[in-house]
Amino acid sequence: MARIAALSGFPEWLPEQELLERRVVRHLEHTFELHGYQPLTTRAVEPLEVLTSKGGDTDKEIYVLRRLHADPDEGDAGLGLHFDLTVPFARYVAERRGDLVFPWKRYQVQKVWRGERPQHGRYREFTQCDIDVIGQDELSPRFDAEVVRLLSDVLAGLPIPPVTLLVNHRKLLEGLYRGLGVDRVTDVLRAVDKRNKIGDAGVRPLLAAAGVPAEAADRILAAAAIEAHTASELEASVRNLGVSHPLLDQGLAELAALLDRCADRPGVRAALHIARGLDYYTGTVVEGYLQGHEHIGAVCSGGRYEDLAGTLGGGGKLPGVGVSIGLTRILGHLFATGALKPARRSPCQVLVTLPSEARRAEAEAVADALRARGIATDLFHRDAGWGKQLKRGDQLGIPYAWFLPDGDAPHRVKHLASGAQVDADPRTWTPDPFEGALPVEVDGVIRRWG
Amino acid sequence: MARIAALSGFPEWLPEQELLERRVVRHLEHTFELHGYQPLTTRAVEPLEVLTSKGGDTDKEIYVLRRLHADPDEGDAGLGLHFDLTVPFARYVAERRGDLVFPWKRYQVQKVWRGERPQHGRYREFTQCDIDVIGQDELSPRFDAEVVRLLSDVLAGLPIPPVTLLVNHRKLLEGLYRGLGVDRVTDVLRAVDKRNKIGDAGVRPLLAAAGVPAEAADRILAAAAIEAHTASELEASVRNLGVSHPLLDQGLAELAALLDRCADRPGVRAALHIARGLDYYTGTVVEGYLQGHEHIGAVCSGGRYEDLAGTLGGGGKLPGVGVSIGLTRILGHLFATGALKPARRSPCQVLVTLPSEARRAEAEAVADALRARGIATDLFHRDAGWGKQLKRGDQLGIPYAWFLPDGDAPHRVKHLASGAQVDADPRTWTPDPFEGALPVEVDGVIRRWG
Repeated sequence: MARIAALSGFPEWLPEQELLERRVVRHLEHTFELHGYQPLTTRAVEPLEVLTSKGGDTDKEIYVLRRLHADPDEGDAGLGLHFDLTVPFARYVAERRGDLVFPWKRYQVQKVWRGERPQHGRYREFTQCDIDVIGQDELSPRFDAEVVRLLSDVLAGLPIPPVTLLVNHRKLLEGLYRGLGVDRVTDVLRAVDKRNKIGDAGVRPLLAAAGVPAEAADRILAAAAIEAHTASELEASVRNLGVSHPLLDQGLAELAALLDRCADRPGVRAALHIARGLDYYTGTVVEGYLQGHEHIGAVCSGGRYEDLAGTLGGGGKLPGVGVSIGLTRILGHLFATGALKPARRSPCQVLVTLPSEARRAEAEAVADALRARGIATDLFHRDAGWGKQLKRGDQLGIPYAWFLPDGDAPHRVKHLASGAQVDADPRTWTPDPFEGALPVEVDGVIRRWG
Repeated sequence: MARIAALSGFPEWLPEQELLERRVVRHLEHTFELHGYQPLTTRAVEPLEVLTSKGGDTDKEIYVLRRLHADPDEGDAGLGLHFDLTVPFARYVAERRGDLVFPWKRYQVQKVWRGERPQHGRYREFTQCDIDVIGQDELSPRFDAEVVRLLSDVLAGLPIPPVTLLVNHRKLLEGLYRGLGVDRVTDVLRAVDKRNKIGDAGVRPLLAAAGVPAEAADRILAAAAIEAHTASELEASVRNLGVSHPLLDQGLAELAALLDRCADRPGVRAALHIARGLDYYTGTVVEGYLQGHEHIGAVCSGGRYEDLAGTLGGGGKLPGVGVSIGLTRILGHLFATGALKPARRSPCQVLVTLPSEARRAEAEAVADALRARGIATDLFHRDAGWGKQLKRGDQLGIPYAWFLPDGDAPHRVKHLASGAQVDADPRTWTPDPFEGALPVEVDGVIRRWG
């Protein structure tokens, strides 16, 4: 008998959790389309040379494919599973450049795979949700604010705790460091990026190792501690550091403009310790944290980059800005801790009961009439007592039971939670708006959603 | 520079095709949920022993995974990518049996992978869409009709040519063969299943090789030629063969009942050459063909089976009935031949134009007002002449352009295809229903859809 067991790092949900994830994905997709983002799905595999073309990502554990019945000397197919959505997106844009209309806005929701050692919050298979805007040769910095606002809005529409979005600007940091006479900017960025994990006391020796004098290190750490909700707060705090450099000015102006544009999004604030380790980003950077669950790390992140395709593409730069939402990280954590619970197992609002097998055609007609009006409906499947039938409704969390009439009496609908019954016509009856949606339990409180 | 190219067997769509596929998937999911089917997503990988546990599937080319940086003596991870959705579904049900409410109805839309040699209509990566109903120990034959009706309805709601659903019953065939004194029933089923490809002349030697006498072969081929739209036609034709056997009677009665229940679905008919090669099926079998495109083979198929989990599961049988829709096969063919074309590149109905950068906030307010009412809206991204702005709307296929007012004049909306302009209020204006949907071109005719 074959091994039937969960695989560590490859999460799977219960059907009711999956129902919720599908609604979350539909909400994301719908919102992105409302804003003009086009969908993209790339193949799951890329040639290894594409996957390894960005030097910084060799620490991502790539899964390589081999055919089970390959000839012994056939070796690998030279293909691996993608470990993020950025590499396949870049390859797609390089390949289909002539078919796309720039600036191109795209969203992409797909699984990615990493052969890392599984640990809390780390998965080997997980779903990412990315949005990006790509320009040809140039892309207005206004898109940075558009992407951050949209990220804020789409997350606010989900049944999850509020998300704080911390923004920063690489040019601000680089200008600051250069203004302080620091040469090894990348090393300093990487050190500062670790502040959240190791604290100032941990960062200080890394700065010393990067050749930063103690006085400059003080100011770098003072800068990293700056947080600001408004453009004017930000400007005052940064000017207060007493450093000047043209890059600093440019980064500060762009970050201040972004804060201005996000002034009506209370979760967005500047936090100058956000650096994002990768060389990839060249302007705005953003990281998001679930309020009350900050310890699980960033649940979304992204920023501005100079050239999407880099070594993959010829024919001019493709600057862009984008963010990635770690859907599995968010849902996996909220499901595991019980902070998010589906309140319903079935997508249905109504269970049509069956008084006897002889009346099945009538019951089917009721179910079809309700479905035709968009009311998801199940039909009890066999002759059975009312108790058995209502028990199924209860097990599936279906809120209403429908009863066919006796003789000329009207149909009756029972709300199972309250016991309330009403007369009903299958051509006109509609569920209460609360029950018509998909209720969810967030931090112990059941609320309407979806 | 890394290799940037399409990979044979790994299809990818253009954004406008992907937009259409996403709508198709949403239609499928929505329809299944309306009927009470719960979503399931399984991990993409299974232990090899699970993938190979069904003997009949060893001809499926499985992709095995290995970590790129594995130690030389580490070997494979013992994991492979699933080649269909049935095996992971069976494993999931065996694993989560105690968490499920039976009969369990589930739908599942996911990619699958097969390391086969790519050829026309064969893919190495493709999307399948499965629905199944699973009982514990028993499952009413009524579900067979429910699944076939739902399959018929959901396909009829797609912007594709009509699909003919051919149904048959394994017990009818087995009873027929046994009634003719044939012992090697499986060999005969496999031979008859090839009739569509190799014709009667090709099947006859296979029957002889299976030890079937010429007279019995005649009747087997006569039976295989039977097609019937109604239960009474079917019964008359089968009785006319002059064979009797209890299994034949049972299969005929069940198939006739299914035809009766599908009498209002004109695309459904009995076709006794449909056998489905696998041992798996034990009752109803079904195959679907795109009308006018029958040469690409079945685009959906399925049937009734005795036990889903088989060797994977303990604790009693799990009989079920299900079908699988080959989404990539359908769309790949229709896209490639031009039989199905998206009429629009962008999901948006409206492009808000920008008279000058100074008026961006006004333009954004219009876009937000439209989006708040569910109207997908894009905003032109920079100061540019009207010609440039309208060209982008045209390239993306966005049907309407929105113009901000001068002074106290009203807003204006232009329908780009007709040139018609109207005054409009962003709080109340709505697009024409045709343009509000996603128009598609099916066999050269543009029609509303989605």
